[in-house]
Amino acid sequence: MIISPVFDKESSKALYIQLYEYIKTEITSGLLKPDSKLPSIREASSSLKLSKTTIENAYSQLVAEGYIENYPKRGYFVCDLSEYNFQIKTDIQKNIIGQIAETDYINDGVDKESFDISTWKRLYNKVISDDSTNIYSSGSIQGEKFLRDEIANFVNTMRGGHTSSEQVIVGAGVQYLLGILIGIIKENYNTVAVEMPGFNKAEYIFEDHCFNIRHIDVTDNGFPISALRKSDAKLIYISQSHQYPLGTIMPVNKRMELLDWAYKNNGLIIEDDYDAIIRYGGMPIPSLQGLDKNDCVIYLGSFSKMLLPSLRISFMVIPKKLLPKYNIIKTRHTQSTSKIDQLVLANFMKDGYMLKHLRKIKRIYKKKNLLISTSFKNTFKNKLEIINSESGLHIVCEADTVKSEEKLQEDAKNSRVLLNIISKHENKIIFSLNYSGININKIQDFTNLLKKIL
Amino acid sequence: MIISPVFDKESSKALYIQLYEYIKTEITSGLLKPDSKLPSIREASSSLKLSKTTIENAYSQLVAEGYIENYPKRGYFVCDLSEYNFQIKTDIQKNIIGQIAETDYINDGVDKESFDISTWKRLYNKVISDDSTNIYSSGSIQGEKFLRDEIANFVNTMRGGHTSSEQVIVGAGVQYLLGILIGIIKENYNTVAVEMPGFNKAEYIFEDHCFNIRHIDVTDNGFPISALRKSDAKLIYISQSHQYPLGTIMPVNKRMELLDWAYKNNGLIIEDDYDAIIRYGGMPIPSLQGLDKNDCVIYLGSFSKMLLPSLRISFMVIPKKLLPKYNIIKTRHTQSTSKIDQLVLANFMKDGYMLKHLRKIKRIYKKKNLLISTSFKNTFKNKLEIINSESGLHIVCEADTVKSEEKLQEDAKNSRVLLNIISKHENKIIFSLNYSGININKIQDFTNLLKKIL
Repeated sequence: MIISPVFDKESSKALYIQLYEYIKTEITSGLLKPDSKLPSIREASSSLKLSKTTIENAYSQLVAEGYIENYPKRGYFVCDLSEYNFQIKTDIQKNIIGQIAETDYINDGVDKESFDISTWKRLYNKVISDDSTNIYSSGSIQGEKFLRDEIANFVNTMRGGHTSSEQVIVGAGVQYLLGILIGIIKENYNTVAVEMPGFNKAEYIFEDHCFNIRHIDVTDNGFPISALRKSDAKLIYISQSHQYPLGTIMPVNKRMELLDWAYKNNGLIIEDDYDAIIRYGGMPIPSLQGLDKNDCVIYLGSFSKMLLPSLRISFMVIPKKLLPKYNIIKTRHTQSTSKIDQLVLANFMKDGYMLKHLRKIKRIYKKKNLLISTSFKNTFKNKLEIINSESGLHIVCEADTVKSEEKLQEDAKNSRVLLNIISKHENKIIFSLNYSGININKIQDFTNLLKKIL
Repeated sequence: MIISPVFDKESSKALYIQLYEYIKTEITSGLLKPDSKLPSIREASSSLKLSKTTIENAYSQLVAEGYIENYPKRGYFVCDLSEYNFQIKTDIQKNIIGQIAETDYINDGVDKESFDISTWKRLYNKVISDDSTNIYSSGSIQGEKFLRDEIANFVNTMRGGHTSSEQVIVGAGVQYLLGILIGIIKENYNTVAVEMPGFNKAEYIFEDHCFNIRHIDVTDNGFPISALRKSDAKLIYISQSHQYPLGTIMPVNKRMELLDWAYKNNGLIIEDDYDAIIRYGGMPIPSLQGLDKNDCVIYLGSFSKMLLPSLRISFMVIPKKLLPKYNIIKTRHTQSTSKIDQLVLANFMKDGYMLKHLRKIKRIYKKKNLLISTSFKNTFKNKLEIINSESGLHIVCEADTVKSEEKLQEDAKNSRVLLNIISKHENKIIFSLNYSGININKIQDFTNLLKKIL
C-alpha cells in the first residue's frame, strides 16, 4: 500500500504529527481499509524522504491510540474501526443555549474601601516565595495548622467559643464543609431541620446528599423549639446569633433549651455564624459553641463577609466526639482552599491585621447602616418599616408594593439590585437587602432606585 | 437589689462589657434570682459611679441575649434560667483525641524547579490591584468568563476537545465539581460505574450522594465494555487517556464503542483527564470529549498536576444538552475558587506562560522518568518490573516483597514515601508511585529508600 501525505514544511507542527494526522484521517474516513498493511518504517522513510525516527514516532502514536497494530515480524496493520462513525462534530459555537448572564449587584459584596490590599499583597509575596510554604505540595487536607491555630484563637476570643485547632477544618465555602460533615455523621443522621426562611444553599447540600428536610417556621416569634421537638430531626441547621435572613437573635433561654434538647436526644446543632461578629448596638452575641458543654455544636464560620468574598475561605469547628470518625474519613476529601491563601490569611491574623480590619469595617458599616436607615425613613415615610438592622450586612424591611413578586425580582435585577424577598402578602412584602456593597456617598441614590423598584 | 461589681480600670475591656459580664455570671451562677429586679439605670449609674450610657449598654446587651427583660415603666428583671446548667466547660485542650499527623511525602507534589513564581507574583499583584477585578464581590458562580474562555481554548487546542466557554464550570477540585454535576443529573441517574482500581475520591462523592456504585475491573486487558453493558449503570467515570492508577490507554476502537454505548443507552461518560497532557513517548492521547459527536461526555480537568497542587483550581466541561438544567440549578452552589486566583491563571494562560510551563515540565518529568526507570532497573534487577511509565507523574511497577500490605504501608509512611498499592498476591505487589516531587539529584537515594521499604 502507498501512502502519500502532503507536508506543510512551514507549519509549526512536527512532521511526525502531520504524518500521524494524515494516516488517522485516512483510517477514520475509510480510505485506508481495515487490515491493510502500512509500509514498513524503512519503506516509508525512503519513499517519503523522512527520517526513520519521524515514521516511528507517527506509527507509535497510532499504535498507542489503537488506530494501527504492530505484529512482530509482519509489520503494521490498520485496525478494523469500520463500524464506528467518525464524522466531525458540528460547530458547537453555533447552537449554544442562551446563557443567563450573571448580574454584578451594586448592593452586594463588601465595602470597597475596607480592605488593606497592600498588606495582603506584601504577605502574599512573602508566603509564595517562602520555602517553608512548599507551594509544590497540596498541603494539609484539614487545613494548614498555622491557620487552624489562628482560627481557633479567633473563635475563642472573638466569638466566645471553646475550641482547639484539632477541631477546625478549613474549606472553600460552607457548602463544601457541609459535604465533609455529612460524611462524618451520615451513619447516625438522615434528617435535618432547617429554619424557614433560612440559608437555602445549606439546605440544597443536605438535599443533594439525600437527607430528609424538615422546615421550622421562624417568621413570628423566633425559633420554636416545640416544633423541633415534634419533628423527627435530630440535626438542626441554625443561625442563632443573627438569623439569616430575618436578623433575629435567639435569647439565652432558648439557646440553653436547644442545647438541652440536643444533649438529651443525642442531637447535633449546626451553628452558622456567617456575620454575627458585626453588630452595631453592642457586642456580638456569643456563639452557641461556647455555651455548649456536651459536644453537640458544629460551628461554621466564613471570611466572606468579614474579609473578602472573592477569597473563598471558610471553616468548620467540629465537636471532639466527632474527631475519631473525622480522622477515619478525612482522606476521602481533598483540601479545597489554596494553601497559599490559607497561609497569607494566617499571617494576616497573627500580625493583628484582622482585628484592625474588623474595627474598621464595623465603623464603616455602622455609618452605612445609619445612613440607609435614615434615608429609607425620609424617603419612604410610612410606606416602609425597618424590621431589623442591628447587626450584619443586611437590613430587613416591610414595604408596600402593588407589584407581583416576579415583577419585583425582574425590576430589581434590571437595576442590579439584589433583593431577597422573604414573604409577600397582599400589598406588603418583607425583604432583606444587603447594603455592604453600596458606595457610602450614593446611599440616597440607592434609596431612590429602590423606590422605583417597589 | 444591690449589684456590686469590681471593675478593672487597667483592663482593655470597656466598662460596659465588664458590667455585662459581671451580671451575666451572677445570673448563670444563680446568685441573681429569677424575676428579681435590677437597679434602674439612674440608680445603677449613681451607685456604681458610671455613666448612664455604660449602664444602658450593658443592660441592652443582656436584653438582646435574653438574660434580662425590660418591662416598660416597671424596669429590668432577671429572666428565669434556673432550669439550665451553665457550668463551665472543662478545658478542651486537655483531652483532645490524638490527632493523626499528616505526612508530607517526598515523592508527591510537583517539581520544585518547575514554577515561575516571579511571573505569578507579578500577575497576582496586577490582578488584585486592578479595579476591574472587583475583589469585593464574590464573582461568577460558574467561574470568571476570562478564565473559562482560556480553558475552552486550552481544551480545544491541547486536548483535541470541542468546547465553548459556556460549557466550562470552574471549581476548587474535582470533588466539588462532581457535587455540582450530581445536582444536574440526579433526576435521571442514580448508579455510576467506576474503574477498579480507580480514583477513589470520585467514588466517595457519588457514595455520599447516595448513588449506587458498580465496580468495573480494569486490571487485565483494559476497560471491558461488555462488563459495562451488563451492569445497570448508565453513567461511567473513567480516565481513558491515562488510566489512574494503572496508566493504560484506551484504544480508539474501545473509545468509539464506549461513545456508541453512551449514545444508544442515553448514557453519560465522565472523563477524568487529570494528567494525560504529560506524555513522554509521543503526543498526549486526545480526549474523549473531542471524539464525542452526541453530547455524552463530561470532561474533568485540573491544574493540580500541570501547574500547582497548592492552588486548587479545577474545571468541568459539560455537554450542551446539560446546560439548560445547569442554568436552572447553578445558583444552588457558590463558586469555590478564589476570583483573584482565577484571574491570575487566566492572565497566565493568555500571555503564553502556561504553554511555556508545560514545555518545561515535560522536559523535567521526561528526564526524571528516565532516571527513575534506569535506577530501578539497575538497583532491583529482576525483583521489580516497570509495567507502565509512558506518561503522567507516576509509574506502575510489579515487585517482589515478603512484607504484608499493612507493613509495607507503615514502612512507606515512616519513610515519607507515598506508595499506592494496587494489588498484592502472594509475594508480589503491584503499586503506583509518584515521582514528580523527588529532587532530580536524589533519585538514586529514593530508589535505595524504596528498596529498604520493599
